[in-house]
Amino acid sequence: MYSELREEICQANKKLKDNGLVRWTSGNVSYRIPGINRVIIKPSGVDFDDLTAASMVIVNLAGEVIEGDLKPSVDTESHLYVYKHMENIHSVIHTHSPFATSFAIRGRDLPSYTTTAANIFKHRVPCSGFASIGGEEIGREIVQNIGESPAILLKNHGVFTIGESIDKALKAAVILEETAEYAFYALLQEPNIDPLSSEIIEQCNDFYLTSYGQ
Amino acid sequence: MYSELREEICQANKKLKDNGLVRWTSGNVSYRIPGINRVIIKPSGVDFDDLTAASMVIVNLAGEVIEGDLKPSVDTESHLYVYKHMENIHSVIHTHSPFATSFAIRGRDLPSYTTTAANIFKHRVPCSGFASIGGEEIGREIVQNIGESPAILLKNHGVFTIGESIDKALKAAVILEETAEYAFYALLQEPNIDPLSSEIIEQCNDFYLTSYGQ
Amino acid sequence: MYSELREEICQANKKLKDNGLVRWTSGNVSYRIPGINRVIIKPSGVDFDDLTAASMVIVNLAGEVIEGDLKPSVDTESHLYVYKHMENIHSVIHTHSPFATSFAIRGRDLPSYTTTAANIFKHRVPCSGFASIGGEEIGREIVQNIGESPAILLKNHGVFTIGESIDKALKAAVILEETAEYAFYALLQEPNIDPLSSEIIEQCNDFYLTSYGQ
Amino acid sequence: MYSELREEICQANKKLKDNGLVRWTSGNVSYRIPGINRVIIKPSGVDFDDLTAASMVIVNLAGEVIEGDLKPSVDTESHLYVYKHMENIHSVIHTHSPFATSFAIRGRDLPSYTTTAANIFKHRVPCSGFASIGGEEIGREIVQNIGESPAILLKNHGVFTIGESIDKALKAAVILEETAEYAFYALLQEPNIDPLSSEIIEQCNDFYLTSYGQ
Repeated sequence: MYSELREEICQANKKLKDNGLVRWTSGNVSYRIPGINRVIIKPSGVDFDDLTAASMVIVNLAGEVIEGDLKPSVDTESHLYVYKHMENIHSVIHTHSPFATSFAIRGRDLPSYTTTAANIFKHRVPCSGFASIGGEEIGREIVQNIGESPAILLKNHGVFTIGESIDKALKAAVILEETAEYAFYALLQEPNIDPLSSEIIEQCNDFYLTSYGQ
Repeated sequence: MYSELREEICQANKKLKDNGLVRWTSGNVSYRIPGINRVIIKPSGVDFDDLTAASMVIVNLAGEVIEGDLKPSVDTESHLYVYKHMENIHSVIHTHSPFATSFAIRGRDLPSYTTTAANIFKHRVPCSGFASIGGEEIGREIVQNIGESPAILLKNHGVFTIGESIDKALKAAVILEETAEYAFYALLQEPNIDPLSSEIIEQCNDFYLTSYGQ
Repeated sequence: MYSELREEICQANKKLKDNGLVRWTSGNVSYRIPGINRVIIKPSGVDFDDLTAASMVIVNLAGEVIEGDLKPSVDTESHLYVYKHMENIHSVIHTHSPFATSFAIRGRDLPSYTTTAANIFKHRVPCSGFASIGGEEIGREIVQNIGESPAILLKNHGVFTIGESIDKALKAAVILEETAEYAFYALLQEPNIDPLSSEIIEQCNDFYLTSYGQ
Repeated sequence: MYSELREEICQANKKLKDNGLVRWTSGNVSYRIPGINRVIIKPSGVDFDDLTAASMVIVNLAGEVIEGDLKPSVDTESHLYVYKHMENIHSVIHTHSPFATSFAIRGRDLPSYTTTAANIFKHRVPCSGFASIGGEEIGREIVQNIGESPAILLKNHGVFTIGESIDKALKAAVILEETAEYAFYALLQEPNIDPLSSEIIEQCNDFYLTSYGQ
């Protein structure tokens, strides 16, 4: 069942690798099917190049496998925690994007230095506390700390993004790495550079939400 | 109409992504058709991989859509401002090139440290003041500050380049990122390194304009 | 003989280049065939793009060529030293991965700053002493210093990884470069940042070994 | 005439782009045909993607075009100067490799920090004085300063490599950028790190020249 959706989630997972946000088998995209609280997620430890629609795993919100021959991602419970606590979120993405992860290693929020960052993340991409892998702990850190941003840095680990659609969560993941890359270059030269002012950030974000795109 | 030109502008937009100057949907190429003051430009918020000749939008200098089913880029008014104030310019390009954007975050001009930079940008790539997205404000910053260079850093935002042809504006965008990358590496090691002297820059630029290419 | 295995080792060598861990002809993958102490290894000085299954060289543990028209890698004796001293290791990989090699130039261990590093390398990726190329010296440095990690930095040279399978040695090589990249970015901004605590590292590694993958 | 050689030089030029050593139209490979002092070189200002065997230009040592419809590279006289003063050199390559060029902007030699650098460049890649483009001046800087290395950093400009064959000059260009990249990362963390000792460099280089490859 859901063969088209499985294919879509499979392709979304591969896009993480195409955009340089993951390597080997780490990182994952999940999607909550509207209305029925079933979640499609990447299987654990499978290389992105080997993913197929058939290898995607479908679980219910209790984490029980409903369809699929493989074990789901070890991050599944944390994805489910987000879905259970954020009703309008339908996609959760995890990456090890290198520039963003360097801020997560330092345990620092990434403030908005550009109009692009203000458009997508508003004031900052927050950094969570440390969370163990395998249970709901990562999910709790996401829900507690992500605030207005669709992305969060997970301390000493990597990145999570969320969205009402796969496309929005993917965009947040791709733009976070762009934003982290040039912020890193700028901050290496001038460590005390000021982020954009709150007023400019609000104005950028309002314009983006009301006027950008089709 | 203009199906060959639409295809050419579509391909020029895709080259921004192929050259690592943009990600996802941000950035755009426009072209003013000689003689008739019609401008072909990327639609707003469309992924570079999904662009087709048919999706390009044609506007007049007042910003009214003449042909095309999609909304034009939110940067359209600024592109038009450039065309209205710089008669010989037929292409405007906007990117978020990471190394160049790091100089724009710092609000710093990028002086010419290499013969290549002197050839294309002469003395420096200037950095503009901050401009809001969506109106003519970016266009005004470009026209007021770009000077002799075909490229300008847009404060806390990214890069704009201009040219008499698409090829010249594209070349400026590609070479700016090359130039910003090795200047960044050099300046990290030696922050007070001297740019080339004015005399050498003039000599490089003269030779380039008179002797380079076919 | 062993044409399928030769093809597999050939493809594993090409993956080093696909993952940005080697350039031109440097670096190599070898594999010890279970039970018979024959080792398949890359030929010396052959471009990764020109490798074929037929060009792979098979040697015995004394370093004598058993099959193959080409000279084996100049690192062969060091690969064999590892196989002779580590019974459960069936694959050895050598790369010049740029971020990891920068730690090897400095002669520094790379401590674990992320859950991913703790999963794969436990407490640290150690750095060896300097070893000459061409004999067993590199092999001795690996066996003496690699400890609990499947990867070692070879002083002023590059990286070696080992594994019970090709896949495990390749994973260690790919994840080492990911880990070295974001650690480098973080340490440039904050040189005294703390690695993960021993307790967290043990917990990550235990979970990874017991619960990750299929 | 020489259609196979033209194709070979054309492909060698494209390899500069494939290896990230050039962008747009800058940089070039030339080859001196053994015995007859004819040189095949890239045409001036042509995009690497548009190069064909037929577009390559053949000149004599006086710089006169013998075959070809296009103008040769503006660097032709400097290539010829090298061929006239270094009898055993049959290929000259020019790139704008970003990490290596950052050392050229600083006007610094790149000492050998790794066995790979010692193998190919021996003690160091020297940096020349500044030279104007368009005449023999660059060629003179190369001949006077390149010493034992097959590569030289051209001050405020880029890189030149030389070789008895195209393959050797290409290898020097590719390995120089690898070497410059990890040296840059190491030196950013520890600016006073020691290069390899002369004794180790001699030993590496001897072993490489006598034992590496087929």
